[in-house]
Amino acid sequence: MMIIMRPGAPREQIDHVIEHIREHHLSPHVIEGVEQTVIGAVGESHAISTGAFEGLPGVLAVQRISQPYKLASRQFHPSDSVFPLDPAPLRSGDFGFSVGGEEIAIIAGPCSVEGRAQLFEIAQAVREAGANALRGGAFKPRTSPYAFQGLGEEGLQYLAEARELTGMPVVAEIMAVSQVEVMTKYVDVLQVGARNMQNYNLLRAIGETRAPVLLKRGLSATIDELLMSAEYILSGGNTRVMLCERGIRTFETSTRNTTDINAIPVLKSLTHLPVFLDPSHSTGHAAYVAAIAKAAIAAGADGLIVEVHQDPAHALSDGKQSLTPEAFAKLVAQVRAVAEAVGRRVTTVQVRAR
Amino acid sequence: MMIIMRPGAPREQIDHVIEHIREHHLSPHVIEGVEQTVIGAVGESHAISTGAFEGLPGVLAVQRISQPYKLASRQFHPSDSVFPLDPAPLRSGDFGFSVGGEEIAIIAGPCSVEGRAQLFEIAQAVREAGANALRGGAFKPRTSPYAFQGLGEEGLQYLAEARELTGMPVVAEIMAVSQVEVMTKYVDVLQVGARNMQNYNLLRAIGETRAPVLLKRGLSATIDELLMSAEYILSGGNTRVMLCERGIRTFETSTRNTTDINAIPVLKSLTHLPVFLDPSHSTGHAAYVAAIAKAAIAAGADGLIVEVHQDPAHALSDGKQSLTPEAFAKLVAQVRAVAEAVGRRVTTVQVRAR
Amino acid sequence: MMIIMRPGAPREQIDHVIEHIREHHLSPHVIEGVEQTVIGAVGESHAISTGAFEGLPGVLAVQRISQPYKLASRQFHPSDSVFPLDPAPLRSGDFGFSVGGEEIAIIAGPCSVEGRAQLFEIAQAVREAGANALRGGAFKPRTSPYAFQGLGEEGLQYLAEARELTGMPVVAEIMAVSQVEVMTKYVDVLQVGARNMQNYNLLRAIGETRAPVLLKRGLSATIDELLMSAEYILSGGNTRVMLCERGIRTFETSTRNTTDINAIPVLKSLTHLPVFLDPSHSTGHAAYVAAIAKAAIAAGADGLIVEVHQDPAHALSDGKQSLTPEAFAKLVAQVRAVAEAVGRRVTTVQVRAR
Amino acid sequence: MMIIMRPGAPREQIDHVIEHIREHHLSPHVIEGVEQTVIGAVGESHAISTGAFEGLPGVLAVQRISQPYKLASRQFHPSDSVFPLDPAPLRSGDFGFSVGGEEIAIIAGPCSVEGRAQLFEIAQAVREAGANALRGGAFKPRTSPYAFQGLGEEGLQYLAEARELTGMPVVAEIMAVSQVEVMTKYVDVLQVGARNMQNYNLLRAIGETRAPVLLKRGLSATIDELLMSAEYILSGGNTRVMLCERGIRTFETSTRNTTDINAIPVLKSLTHLPVFLDPSHSTGHAAYVAAIAKAAIAAGADGLIVEVHQDPAHALSDGKQSLTPEAFAKLVAQVRAVAEAVGRRVTTVQVRAR
Repeated sequence: MMIIMRPGAPREQIDHVIEHIREHHLSPHVIEGVEQTVIGAVGESHAISTGAFEGLPGVLAVQRISQPYKLASRQFHPSDSVFPLDPAPLRSGDFGFSVGGEEIAIIAGPCSVEGRAQLFEIAQAVREAGANALRGGAFKPRTSPYAFQGLGEEGLQYLAEARELTGMPVVAEIMAVSQVEVMTKYVDVLQVGARNMQNYNLLRAIGETRAPVLLKRGLSATIDELLMSAEYILSGGNTRVMLCERGIRTFETSTRNTTDINAIPVLKSLTHLPVFLDPSHSTGHAAYVAAIAKAAIAAGADGLIVEVHQDPAHALSDGKQSLTPEAFAKLVAQVRAVAEAVGRRVTTVQVRAR
Repeated sequence: MMIIMRPGAPREQIDHVIEHIREHHLSPHVIEGVEQTVIGAVGESHAISTGAFEGLPGVLAVQRISQPYKLASRQFHPSDSVFPLDPAPLRSGDFGFSVGGEEIAIIAGPCSVEGRAQLFEIAQAVREAGANALRGGAFKPRTSPYAFQGLGEEGLQYLAEARELTGMPVVAEIMAVSQVEVMTKYVDVLQVGARNMQNYNLLRAIGETRAPVLLKRGLSATIDELLMSAEYILSGGNTRVMLCERGIRTFETSTRNTTDINAIPVLKSLTHLPVFLDPSHSTGHAAYVAAIAKAAIAAGADGLIVEVHQDPAHALSDGKQSLTPEAFAKLVAQVRAVAEAVGRRVTTVQVRAR
Repeated sequence: MMIIMRPGAPREQIDHVIEHIREHHLSPHVIEGVEQTVIGAVGESHAISTGAFEGLPGVLAVQRISQPYKLASRQFHPSDSVFPLDPAPLRSGDFGFSVGGEEIAIIAGPCSVEGRAQLFEIAQAVREAGANALRGGAFKPRTSPYAFQGLGEEGLQYLAEARELTGMPVVAEIMAVSQVEVMTKYVDVLQVGARNMQNYNLLRAIGETRAPVLLKRGLSATIDELLMSAEYILSGGNTRVMLCERGIRTFETSTRNTTDINAIPVLKSLTHLPVFLDPSHSTGHAAYVAAIAKAAIAAGADGLIVEVHQDPAHALSDGKQSLTPEAFAKLVAQVRAVAEAVGRRVTTVQVRAR
Repeated sequence: MMIIMRPGAPREQIDHVIEHIREHHLSPHVIEGVEQTVIGAVGESHAISTGAFEGLPGVLAVQRISQPYKLASRQFHPSDSVFPLDPAPLRSGDFGFSVGGEEIAIIAGPCSVEGRAQLFEIAQAVREAGANALRGGAFKPRTSPYAFQGLGEEGLQYLAEARELTGMPVVAEIMAVSQVEVMTKYVDVLQVGARNMQNYNLLRAIGETRAPVLLKRGLSATIDELLMSAEYILSGGNTRVMLCERGIRTFETSTRNTTDINAIPVLKSLTHLPVFLDPSHSTGHAAYVAAIAKAAIAAGADGLIVEVHQDPAHALSDGKQSLTPEAFAKLVAQVRAVAEAVGRRVTTVQVRAR
């Protein structure tokens, strides 16, 4: 049962509700969002009437959510979540577009930040091609301990500079709780990679921040498990969670992964959170990226994240699946046409004055 | 090595080439197509020069094909295969459209033919909604020996009548070699179901016919295996093979199968054969069918096959994934918009005068 | 509901039961076994009391089976099915051992029968090493239409000769309904391959015979689907069905397939039919076959089917996974030790006088 | 290339080798083991002769390892790794047995430590039944943020007390870098769960400790990826890594996971590290645990980890797959017989005097 408090409900009203929850032998989970406080009452609640809480002072509404994920479910939040990607302390709407609504977000950039010049060149190229956010990895999760592990904080600094240069919000992967501080200092959107989708300590730490999050589906995670991982972040009070299908592991070896395109309409029906697709990882081959990007938008995705490199053959990671800036520009033009056919549009990011 | 004979090359020239193949310790496979004869020379051919065959009388060209499937590969046939769905003895182009070219084929109808009135009602409804071919099962492969197994020949008769009524070609599943005669008597397109994708005796028998074939991918067949199964049919001289992705089996249980949308661009790059998608089986839920149908066309598919029933709740099979005629009409309108965005179009079938 | 008739119940009693079934709006399925007739009453039977049939003349018992497979379930037949592998017209117990009881069956031999001398050499070698049945393929299901397709009837003749020579029953794969006659003429056990597990027309045809059947699990078939396929055969009245796990298709590529060892105890709990494992196909590498053979017996399997070749490097098919006779002899010795540790034994076949 | 230094090689010799590595444009990775220092030279090394390093002062040997995992490979360490489970500061061999050799380790205990009395009761029961190590979770990775998350440090204290009581080493799961200190204070073996198999920051932190590690395979991790994750730990100088197959995710739903029994012989051929199997998670049903435990030992596993609970129906987690102490005692007796059949033995732990 989810008990939604009125905006600005004072602490004693919250405490009073918590007490009531305990009296009914349930566990209280207080979720302090930016706008409202929600108190989950978890346990054997099916025999308890919602009326037991509806009359309490400060209570706005009481909802019974049948699914194991609560805050992530459409039952809890029937309309689509629409939000800007600005970091919390800045003013809202700053980058000139929102995700989850009519606008399609296209995040593009290199797999790894390899250097300042490389990043700036790609950043400007993808900006001109029509991307509205920039990706780049500074901490890289590599299968081998002997492979290039990313530039670390230096890479983050370049990303922050690229944001100033292009006006695009920057997205980078966070791998560990110890990186939360440095990551939120430099980047706008925290990406949780597939390998960390069930790193619950990391999810909880990110839930404590107020930074937008791009949560990637694990290689063999079910859709329900992805939503449960989102719930870990949401239950910390961080409401700006985007989900990202990036291919699942199956028997088929002609592509790196299998794009679970079904996940797009399934997620859109189960949750109010924006849904992205990463056609670079979900196919693993540059030749198939545009086709799958178009398919994602046709199926109802709210955004894409695409790997672009000025010299894929010499990229330090993921070269095989990276598009050249020219190929990416074609992709954006094609995606734009499909977006319009399904009543959406690709917004060009506004260069902001700061 | 594939040795392509000139059109009309006499029997003795063919025999002469065969003799030469044997002298090089290779196995000859003669493939007598409608327009030309191709002779495969299979075995350790990499050390043998194409020149060994190029000068022989009647030889038009000699090709080395690196892939295990030969006639199905783009190396062998670089341009897209485009063909009408008319049964061979009738005149070509009869139904007013072709598959594999600019036009998108939309095959729709009930999972099973349940009776004459049911079939006619659905046939007219999908025709009006914009379908250009009719599907319906008369022999049903059912997991349980105790389940409804289809109306058999009676169902085929209704399908033939529905073709007369609507002008649409009819598609039905063939399950056994013993059904070849009755199937080709009544229906236009032979569908090979997922369970029979590697029923090689059936594939060979179909290769002997000249009927268009819709070959569905097996539940756990790789893309290469699908192409090898197509090769069984092509090597019998039947060139009108359409491939159909219908979902593969993975760990994800929120949908009946996982639509392998990657298979669309992968197949389009490897083969010249038209590629279809069956969003009804690949999702298993009516609610997700339209989203995946749009995704398929955006990704480059040449056609769709969709289950439609006037009363899904009471269908004898596959009710959960069947669309109502109204939902199907909406799907066609949406698919039409996406098709135009990617430079294709949905043709309305012409009612033919016979 | 399954209605078991008394042995020798006359036709009119059976017809009377059928009539009663129809009066209750259920479908009758008459299964004429060697010893007794069982009549399935399929449909919405949960509201009908078993008493409706228990009193009818000739009825021995009435059982409600909750699972979709009926004759294959342990509910229907609580004790293990134990039977010899002799073809029906011969006398029972002829080969000196039974499957499904305390004795472990070890079927061994080449993937393909390549010639008389090759087969006889392997047959004698595996006989000496401790095998108690001989396998060999005469009709081969090959992914490529251009690959070696087996010796056909000639191969079957060699198998029949090898049986005379060694006293071992012979097992070969059947691929098509049209092969039933020739197969039952020469071989003792009909093997249904993974690709044909849901070739329902073939299963029905085999159900009409009285030959023992080794039914292999499809590459991506669930355990329930395997049991439903067995039901197709059983419902034709053929009760000697053996199930065979041979590896399923997963993401793991270090082995050809993934041995689903769990399937052994799961099948033993759900069904009374004997359960085999094929470690050659389930691993695809000779180096791993013995370990998995031991595991199968430790987990409760009733038998093994193993590929053996005198010269694996030059085998016409499956050489990589074939054991040499020496390696196979070691496997048998190790399996014998494990079998004894779990209360089973490997019987050496008796050379029979004919 | 792996450059193995002589035991006790002084710092300047190591530095000299590093310098030489850099001169050949390779990256040096210094791995300081308890007994010897190994320096990996990573990069384009195939054109460089091993002679370039063999003559340098302090160098014992130079090895070329073709696999991406180096320290984990059998090429690097041909004989089996055999080691005791004692925490590093204590004297070796303390618990009276080693893993990886002739002795089979059987780790048993509850999924979660639920309280002192519960843990002690199970600990004594599994000790009597023949277990030689105790498992119990204090930090629990749960899919839902609202589920029981474990007792934390309190649970670890109970585990340490249970070790004193029973003389068995204790195994518990570590979920985060921040838990390294408290975990190594209380427990003997650090378990890395399936969800954290690719949490590289955690693996690196564990590589810095000298505690034995039980590294579980991820739900959809390949065998190669498991070995790469082991390499992360080994490259930190921690050599006591045990690998654990715990079931992979496939399409089959009759069991919680699919036990990849093939992984046992495959791992034993690729690596020198001990290999365990967790039949509780790999099946998910108490009824199948003993069969799979026996299969694991027959296939060559070095140990088992089994969930046992005195009241499975009321366990706070994983009750369905937990054995009662009685069922566990039967499992040990059966495993003992199979172990002897394959030349291994189950050692009873010695109660140690401290």
